[in-house]
Amino acid sequence: MKVRYTDGQEAILQRTNLGNMQCPIARSLERVGEWWSILIMRDAFYGLTRFDEFQQSLQIAPNILTRRLNALVEGGLLERHQYSTRPPRYEYRLTDRGRDFRPVTQALLAWGNRHFAPEGTSVVLTNTETGDLAEPVLVDRKSGRELSDPVFRLAPGPAADERTKRRLAEIRRQAALPDKR
Amino acid sequence: MKVRYTDGQEAILQRTNLGNMQCPIARSLERVGEWWSILIMRDAFYGLTRFDEFQQSLQIAPNILTRRLNALVEGGLLERHQYSTRPPRYEYRLTDRGRDFRPVTQALLAWGNRHFAPEGTSVVLTNTETGDLAEPVLVDRKSGRELSDPVFRLAPGPAADERTKRRLAEIRRQAALPDKR
Repeated sequence: MKVRYTDGQEAILQRTNLGNMQCPIARSLERVGEWWSILIMRDAFYGLTRFDEFQQSLQIAPNILTRRLNALVEGGLLERHQYSTRPPRYEYRLTDRGRDFRPVTQALLAWGNRHFAPEGTSVVLTNTETGDLAEPVLVDRKSGRELSDPVFRLAPGPAADERTKRRLAEIRRQAALPDKR
Repeated sequence: MKVRYTDGQEAILQRTNLGNMQCPIARSLERVGEWWSILIMRDAFYGLTRFDEFQQSLQIAPNILTRRLNALVEGGLLERHQYSTRPPRYEYRLTDRGRDFRPVTQALLAWGNRHFAPEGTSVVLTNTETGDLAEPVLVDRKSGRELSDPVFRLAPGPAADERTKRRLAEIRRQAALPDKR
């Protein structure tokens, strides 16, 4: 775990390596499980690409921004391109992997607006053709059904190891116990 | 920022208070912007409710699990219920706010399966009626259009303050610059 101290220094603290878990959620968090990274991705989806644009938007220390941007480049979510040689200047563009992360930030946006905007919403997603507010909902592309429908269940995939299979079976068993709601 | 040291101790490090930002994504991260919290929520969606179930699934130190569960109760995502008096035992049930967080973990699941499963998927979401793999996609409930469609744009909501309005306007201006892709 990379932590930032009040003086702006960062340090690595040992922790469970989420990337070794077979769970796709854990592996995803390994790549962007950090607030600043998610907010940088948010700004990249807004269309920001340059260091000073991110810096102005996020108001964070340049050395921290540099590290977070480098981590996102290393994780394959952003690509670094030189757009000026004199002076040397770089911009950070979304990769396909980075673009695919957008539903996560949009789901966070919807959840935040629903639960943490006691004074009313400040940032909304609108349909520019109709002027309507968008209401994000996660569905299955094929059937069109909402993923919250109990017809959808987690199952082991082709690469599941014994531990993952046991874990999913155990979870199914416990969730079905009669003394649980 | 709460950090966990290698000896299992936790400490609070000062950082920007995301909850003060008007951005709904930043505010959401303030509540669950921590790996363990998101993995606890994942397990709660699987149907786990009891301390020892979470502990067995996550393999984390009991004192850390206690703190993360308490933070989720405090944040209004889980509710604590006593299910046994002798011995006293509690379970943690999802609230409406907690249940509404599910699309975030499902979006992470889809992203992780797509990008971080080089050996094939280990955990998948399936349609139990058809046996098909679910393909999660975020759409607007009203129009049915995918939220990745450029017709959807961020805009200031009714409670946006001047700073948020300026920020969104500036972002729109920069994203439209001709020298950007």
